[in-house]
Amino acid sequence: MKTELSTRLGVEHAIFGFTPFPAVAAAITRAGGFGVLGAVRYAAGEDLARDLDWMQEHTDGKPYGLDVVMPAKKVEGVSEADIEAMIPQEHRAFVQETLAKHGVPELAEGEASGWRITGWLEQVARSQLDVAFDYPVKLLANALGSPPADVVARAHDRGILVAALAGSARHARHHQDAGLDIVVAQGYEAGGHTGEIASMVLTPEVVEAVDPLPVLAAGGIGSGEQIAAGLALGAQGVWLGSIWLTTEEAELHSAALTEKLLAAGSGDTVRSRALTGKPARQLRTAWTDAWDDPQGPGTLPMPLQGLLVAEAVSRIQKYEVEPLLGTPVGQIVGRMNSTRSVQAVFDDLTRGFERAIDRVNRIAGRD
Amino acid sequence: MKTELSTRLGVEHAIFGFTPFPAVAAAITRAGGFGVLGAVRYAAGEDLARDLDWMQEHTDGKPYGLDVVMPAKKVEGVSEADIEAMIPQEHRAFVQETLAKHGVPELAEGEASGWRITGWLEQVARSQLDVAFDYPVKLLANALGSPPADVVARAHDRGILVAALAGSARHARHHQDAGLDIVVAQGYEAGGHTGEIASMVLTPEVVEAVDPLPVLAAGGIGSGEQIAAGLALGAQGVWLGSIWLTTEEAELHSAALTEKLLAAGSGDTVRSRALTGKPARQLRTAWTDAWDDPQGPGTLPMPLQGLLVAEAVSRIQKYEVEPLLGTPVGQIVGRMNSTRSVQAVFDDLTRGFERAIDRVNRIAGRD
Repeated sequence: MKTELSTRLGVEHAIFGFTPFPAVAAAITRAGGFGVLGAVRYAAGEDLARDLDWMQEHTDGKPYGLDVVMPAKKVEGVSEADIEAMIPQEHRAFVQETLAKHGVPELAEGEASGWRITGWLEQVARSQLDVAFDYPVKLLANALGSPPADVVARAHDRGILVAALAGSARHARHHQDAGLDIVVAQGYEAGGHTGEIASMVLTPEVVEAVDPLPVLAAGGIGSGEQIAAGLALGAQGVWLGSIWLTTEEAELHSAALTEKLLAAGSGDTVRSRALTGKPARQLRTAWTDAWDDPQGPGTLPMPLQGLLVAEAVSRIQKYEVEPLLGTPVGQIVGRMNSTRSVQAVFDDLTRGFERAIDRVNRIAGRD
Repeated sequence: MKTELSTRLGVEHAIFGFTPFPAVAAAITRAGGFGVLGAVRYAAGEDLARDLDWMQEHTDGKPYGLDVVMPAKKVEGVSEADIEAMIPQEHRAFVQETLAKHGVPELAEGEASGWRITGWLEQVARSQLDVAFDYPVKLLANALGSPPADVVARAHDRGILVAALAGSARHARHHQDAGLDIVVAQGYEAGGHTGEIASMVLTPEVVEAVDPLPVLAAGGIGSGEQIAAGLALGAQGVWLGSIWLTTEEAELHSAALTEKLLAAGSGDTVRSRALTGKPARQLRTAWTDAWDDPQGPGTLPMPLQGLLVAEAVSRIQKYEVEPLLGTPVGQIVGRMNSTRSVQAVFDDLTRGFERAIDRVNRIAGRD
């Protein structure tokens, strides 16, 4: 599965795998794809350095990338404490009420909140980049808009390609104008932050909008048939995130959450602002229902909502409080029905791709 | 572009075109596709008979189908007047207020409401079928659930294949259990009544759910590349509706509406209950905004909403009141940017399909 972009990056298959877990990212790269490690959960540079060291040792010299979440709009001189202070009391009370209603225990005294969203903050993202630029990362992706010009320049100086997610042709053109190298067209059905346009429509629209820039199709892709579809739509590769969440290498640290993912159907996700303040697709839970309820206080804008709910999400995850337990995931969750190794998933993708090509060739009378 | 289903129906290309306009349906059939005439706008059997006579004369003996809107739930012995009586006064007042706010003129005295939704009513759909069964229709499609068992039996007695739209694998299995022959997997991005699951995820899910029943991919398809994607996902054909709305043969009878469609981007549609009471994708307008506004009275369930707004929609269309003027259409509206003949659109589809096959074969190393 070779495109101009996969050849340029030196990978066997034009399959890009986004994941917050180093073991998954490394396994994707070893399987012949391009693993992209999500950095948002790393609050401290040393944690990221430790995991990038590990990646270096476990990728056999093959290429991998890093995904940061750097908001497009820069907020100068604002600390985490300043932002915390902007959160209304009503919303804090609603968090506690919702947790109490479901009997979610407190964290032990002094126990740190495990789920972090501090990577949303520019200063944190920048400290992550300072670390990352010491490693032979081949691709830097940004989930929220184009990275600042100086970051793009630093990446390019090091021969690192820069990508960003886009939910519309307008966003994609903005990335092109900002000098980016790759656009990830993130369809409505995708997990995490998404727009309203589904992949079937968005992919070719973005391809046309930024031609000749390479585009990766993201959203709704978890089989080789879907990869073939994404490539038929003009993408130079596909970007898969959700499908790795139930692999053996994923470190969800919650059997209950894994069970929920394995049991969920494609209709069990919702696009909600509950987690970050921007619409992000995730499992629909009593938690998302509470925030999406017109009778409730509603969500706060990013980054307030993320800071507001961080400790609560940690508690829900630690104590595995089933009705509230969720995670960002796409509609593809409906076909995540067994726990397999990354290699097994990858083999399934490449075999399914070949089957799909056979199929369309038969239909086109080319067999 | 041949599949088992297209061969069975005797068409050259597995492209199914749904349209309310006989001239469009006939042109799709003549071009080598399968034209499907939407019957919902026919209140009287004689009007449908006249247009089916015309179809017979203009399809060169090639096959075509009919699409009715027969609600799955039968309401016995209820007349249109009975249903009218269930509409609250508050909602009637809201219609008049919204029309007045935008200065929509009244219809002339005695002038009939041109936009009809009476085809939603079972007795009307049944009278349409009584007419249709006298013609060599090859496919009967139902937009709202499985048709009643006696209708399926009557169709099968005449060698007519029966199809129904499905927005989920569960709906699709229901159609299979009801003895239907084809499922149209209608993705989130589609125009008209849609569910929440996007085509990229829905198509393969439905294919797997009803195997070996043939599935048509619908939603987001308006180019040959998108056709290739739909077929790669396992469909035996594609079902296109929106793309024909701006063809030369389409009888929208409103230059302003055609202009709106040509100008709209993929983000200019909304899934709203404003038109029928069930979520249907359409152009976003001041009309849909009014009904979707949490401050307003909200929409009524089908069929009440459709009856409530029928005359208003006729007035908006007749007087082309721009801010309110809309139509069901999918996200593909973003690429409907010029008025061309059905044949030109069709040629574009088949050429784009061949290009997409070339492309994926190059990526797969099969060129």
